[in-house]
Amino acid sequence: MTITITAFEASPDRGRGLARDMRVRWALEEVGQPYAVRLVSFEAMKQPAHLHRNPFGQIPTYEQDDLVLFESGAIVLHIAERFPGLLPKDPEPRARAITWLFAALNTVEPPIVELSAAMVLERDEAWYGARLPMLHERVRTRLAQLSADMGDADWLDGDFSVADLMMVTVLRRLESSGLLQDYPTLCAFIARGVARPAYQRAFADQLAVFTAAQSAGA
Amino acid sequence: MTITITAFEASPDRGRGLARDMRVRWALEEVGQPYAVRLVSFEAMKQPAHLHRNPFGQIPTYEQDDLVLFESGAIVLHIAERFPGLLPKDPEPRARAITWLFAALNTVEPPIVELSAAMVLERDEAWYGARLPMLHERVRTRLAQLSADMGDADWLDGDFSVADLMMVTVLRRLESSGLLQDYPTLCAFIARGVARPAYQRAFADQLAVFTAAQSAGA
Repeated sequence: MTITITAFEASPDRGRGLARDMRVRWALEEVGQPYAVRLVSFEAMKQPAHLHRNPFGQIPTYEQDDLVLFESGAIVLHIAERFPGLLPKDPEPRARAITWLFAALNTVEPPIVELSAAMVLERDEAWYGARLPMLHERVRTRLAQLSADMGDADWLDGDFSVADLMMVTVLRRLESSGLLQDYPTLCAFIARGVARPAYQRAFADQLAVFTAAQSAGA
Repeated sequence: MTITITAFEASPDRGRGLARDMRVRWALEEVGQPYAVRLVSFEAMKQPAHLHRNPFGQIPTYEQDDLVLFESGAIVLHIAERFPGLLPKDPEPRARAITWLFAALNTVEPPIVELSAAMVLERDEAWYGARLPMLHERVRTRLAQLSADMGDADWLDGDFSVADLMMVTVLRRLESSGLLQDYPTLCAFIARGVARPAYQRAFADQLAVFTAAQSAGA
C-alpha cells in the first residue's frame, strides 16, 4: 500500500526544489497521501535496479505494490486521477486541466530546459554569448503568451489543479534567469503556488534531504 | 457532435506527416471516429480566433461541442480515454501506457526537437558544426536506452497503445538525420507503427492537404 518515490541523494540544485521529485512530493501533499522516499546517487541511477524503475535512468519514479511508474507528468496525473483534490470532476474542465498539464511540460518547459542546459553545459563555449539572446527570446515568447492568456486569473483554468502545480514548478526554473520580472502576472501566479501549505511541506522535505547530505559529506 | 481539428494550411514538412496534427489524425483513425479539419495559415495561427483555441498559437487543436483542447499529447490522451482501442482497460497497464506517452513527449522528444531546431534555425551559424556532435549524442543516449528497454518486444508495454502511437511519431522526426540506422529495434518498431491501416489513412489525408496547397499555389 505504501507509496515510494525516488529522489536525488544529493540534488544538483542544492535544495532549491527544482528537481522533478518536488512535483510528486507537492502532489502527494495536496492529496494528503504519505509516502516513502528512496534516495539514489547518480551512480545508482544508471544501475539495473533503477533502470528497472525508469529505463532512462532519471528521477522521480513512483512505486505502489506492483505498479512502477516514471515521468513526473505521468506520476502527478496518476495521483490526480486516484485521489481527489487535483482535478475537476466534470469531464470538460478535467480535460482542459489535463491540456494545461501537457502545455506546461511540452510547450512552456522545453525552451526553459534548453536555456538551463546551455547555462550549465555550454557556458564556457565560444558560442555561448552569441546564442543566449535567441534562447531568451524563445522563453520570452512563451512567457508573454502565457501571461496574456492568464490575465488576472488566479489559476490556469478555474480552480487550482495539477496543471497549476506543474506550471509553477516549470516557471520556478527561471527564478535565477532574470526573465520572470517582466511578467508580474506570472510572478504572482508562482507566489500563489508556493504559498500553498502543501508546497511548503514538500519544499521543506526535499530541502531536509539536501541538508542531511551536506552534513554527511562535511 | 462533430470533432474538428486544426492543421497547417501548408505544412512546412511538405507532407511527410511530421506535423503534430498527424498524431491526432492517427488516433482518430485508430478509434474509428470521423473528423473535420480546419486548415490554418501561419498568419491565422497568431490571430485571436486561433489563440482562443490555443494561446500559444500552435496546431493541432481539438473541438467537440463546447470543448476546446490543445497539445497533441492531451488530445490523443483524451481520444484514448473517450473511445476504446488506444488504452488498456486494467488500471495498472493503463497507467504504464500513460507513463510511456509522457516518456515519448518529455524524455525522448526534447533532444530530437532541439536537434531539428538547430538543423533548421542555426545551420548557417558559426557554431553549428561544433555543436552538432553534442546534439547527436543527446539523441543517441535516449535511442540507446529505449532500444535496450524494448528488446524484441513489438510495442512499448504489451499491446499497441496511445504510447506507441506517440513514440513512433516522435522517432519519425529523426528519419532524415541518419541516426536511426544504428538502432534496428527502433527501425522495426517504427515500421510496425506506420504499417497500421489507421496510420496509412491518416498519412494519406495529411498528404492530400499538402498536395492540394501545392496545386493551388502553382
